[in-house]
Amino acid sequence: MIKIVENDLFDYGLRIYQSESGFKFSLDSILLAEFVELKKDIIGIVDFCSGNAAVPLILSTKTNTKIVGFEIQKYPFELAYNSIKLNKLSRQIKIINDNLSNVLEYILPESVDIVTCNPPYFKYDVDSNINLAKEKAIARHEIETNLENILISARYILKNKGVLYLVHRPERLAEIFELCKKYKFSIKKLQFVYSSFKKSALMVLIKATKNGLDGLIINPPINISEYNSYKNIFDRR
Amino acid sequence: MIKIVENDLFDYGLRIYQSESGFKFSLDSILLAEFVELKKDIIGIVDFCSGNAAVPLILSTKTNTKIVGFEIQKYPFELAYNSIKLNKLSRQIKIINDNLSNVLEYILPESVDIVTCNPPYFKYDVDSNINLAKEKAIARHEIETNLENILISARYILKNKGVLYLVHRPERLAEIFELCKKYKFSIKKLQFVYSSFKKSALMVLIKATKNGLDGLIINPPINISEYNSYKNIFDRR
Repeated sequence: MIKIVENDLFDYGLRIYQSESGFKFSLDSILLAEFVELKKDIIGIVDFCSGNAAVPLILSTKTNTKIVGFEIQKYPFELAYNSIKLNKLSRQIKIINDNLSNVLEYILPESVDIVTCNPPYFKYDVDSNINLAKEKAIARHEIETNLENILISARYILKNKGVLYLVHRPERLAEIFELCKKYKFSIKKLQFVYSSFKKSALMVLIKATKNGLDGLIINPPINISEYNSYKNIFDRR
Repeated sequence: MIKIVENDLFDYGLRIYQSESGFKFSLDSILLAEFVELKKDIIGIVDFCSGNAAVPLILSTKTNTKIVGFEIQKYPFELAYNSIKLNKLSRQIKIINDNLSNVLEYILPESVDIVTCNPPYFKYDVDSNINLAKEKAIARHEIETNLENILISARYILKNKGVLYLVHRPERLAEIFELCKKYKFSIKKLQFVYSSFKKSALMVLIKATKNGLDGLIINPPINISEYNSYKNIFDRR
């Protein structure tokens, strides 16, 4: 049995369930949610690899549009479901316990404005000895999905010029550029996240537009050690 | 006639000629030269788009290996030639007044360890009205060469695992990744340069290895407004 703890989702006025030994949301999800640009007229946000729904929960504090999350794993899905109920957000957020490659069974093609995804970061090699509980392994390694599937599924459901927001590890950047080109996403913004401005980047936030024009901007760098509250990281932009 | 002025090359103990109204070296060249990692056993450095030889001049203060520069334009070439003489570096640095696509007429294939290049940043459209003197236009726009030619020429002369160092504009990054893949360069390091950490990046420094393995690192960001002397920008890494 997984022990479930109830945590503050920092200063968003939300509570979130996570398992002490298993699935926990991470800073990456907060940064991703804060990176999303929410225009007033957006219709539909879909979050892939939702985990315990940290990204949908944070986005719900910023927009009234419907948010659908996909989470293939049963336990994180249950954490998400209960967190959404706890915060009385069941009318705005739905989480679907299925693989994102089945997205068209639930979402109409070319119907949403925004897809967000905090994916598994690491490539999966069948021979590699992943010394992790299965739940963590699936969240971290490309076992049940991978970058290419995420782009294919996002492309299905995004409107023309719809936007995909991703957080990923910088070492995957070459592949991200390659796959974005293959699936006709134009990378419009990158923002690098550092634990200190004397060290290499830990993460990269990516904004890519379906069938978008060229024109890439590198946003100001983020030094996460400078913040007590992550809510205002992006106020400096 | 171009008025020629003699400038300090900051704190490198060098003097450099440049034309007041025409060709001047820029901070980009200093950042590029400082970004280069010089191992003790390197043989041969070639600098493309040398201008008045700012990159070779700075590199000569850090290594004893021979440096060959290519500069297609006559006036910058003459500035380079005279600056090298002025600094008594004619034995170490040679500048060739030719297009880099003729590089194999001067340099043996697969013979050098390092290629550096501060290229023209902007795409050239025959219809575009470039309101600049021809000399500046060629230095800034891809009239006489372009990114693809630079990669092809660099690939010819670099040894296996030899390194290409480039400085470029962030908006060309998608194309840089694409062409590096096409010509089998692996991008190993990127470093973004900002005028302030509250603004978008101005430039990107790129280290790419011929036939290299994957594995990209994003170096600490550089805030150029923090420095009086550019010589120690990279001491913080």
